[in-house]
Amino acid sequence: MIRAAILRLLAEVGYGALTMDAVAAEAGVGKATIYRRWRTKQDLVADTITELNATTVTPPDTGSLEGDLREVLYAIVDVINGPMGAATQSLLSTVPHHPALGAAFGDGPVGVWRRAFAQVFARAEARGELRPGLAGTVTAEALMAPLVQRWLITGHPVTRDYADQVLADVALPLLRATWKPRG
Amino acid sequence: MIRAAILRLLAEVGYGALTMDAVAAEAGVGKATIYRRWRTKQDLVADTITELNATTVTPPDTGSLEGDLREVLYAIVDVINGPMGAATQSLLSTVPHHPALGAAFGDGPVGVWRRAFAQVFARAEARGELRPGLAGTVTAEALMAPLVQRWLITGHPVTRDYADQVLADVALPLLRATWKPRG
Repeated sequence: MIRAAILRLLAEVGYGALTMDAVAAEAGVGKATIYRRWRTKQDLVADTITELNATTVTPPDTGSLEGDLREVLYAIVDVINGPMGAATQSLLSTVPHHPALGAAFGDGPVGVWRRAFAQVFARAEARGELRPGLAGTVTAEALMAPLVQRWLITGHPVTRDYADQVLADVALPLLRATWKPRG
Repeated sequence: MIRAAILRLLAEVGYGALTMDAVAAEAGVGKATIYRRWRTKQDLVADTITELNATTVTPPDTGSLEGDLREVLYAIVDVINGPMGAATQSLLSTVPHHPALGAAFGDGPVGVWRRAFAQVFARAEARGELRPGLAGTVTAEALMAPLVQRWLITGHPVTRDYADQVLADVALPLLRATWKPRG
């Protein structure tokens, strides 16, 4: 698959050293196939980023805020440790220097994750577990931020065990303290 | 100053395109001065990272946990928006591919910030505002993580206003809910 080949190459050699020919070779297709679809390397990468950002994560409905949050955090762990995580890390220092890539990147994978959280919040609001309005707040950003920090800066492993700790020690206590329904 | 020149170049051209000659030119010194101090580009960058990681941030003692946390968060905002923030961002995708840089990078600026938080926690513990043992926990990591997430992924501005929001909506409620002294 061409997109998988692009992600592998971004992770391995980075945007600077990526070539259309290498993408064709890695994907096992002819160069004409690549050039028919994308005119330049920048088109190809921007298009790949746009597709990734359009990914929909639908967290399973476990029936509780705790269960749903765990599923979203696990999904984030899986993305971080997969080909998209490695490609994203490799792109991050390139994006600010290429306006077209920056525009396509936007909030990157965090946008996808934010939408998944918004679904979980909506369900919890409907069940009366949360006050309405959490999506889009700094509190909502904080629920996934420790995973992102480990992934990008400290390089410590981002595991499901770590997600469990973030859930138990950060996400649930914070939401209970500040987003409990009134009355 | 040579270190400032190295940071500027890392931010502008990245590790891949950095040269010893460019460092000499940017710093306004002779090449011999650079080569006398560092044998290779990798030595030069690893040494710069090591110096940065040895930086000590001593947060002013404001007399309260809230005041001290605000000072540390503001200090982080200033680093993120300064030459060290730009250089770090540029290095992040390079570090995993160069074992010597990775070893020097360690936890990066987060290590410096973690030590500043540890001082603030120790003062608050001494005043009876916090239970002992917060330093090193996932909760402690979570206090700065929203700033790191904005800085590295979403690219939204990391301002003192944003730090105030993180303090009011995330850090203080979380600590009050989970690290209040018993009894």
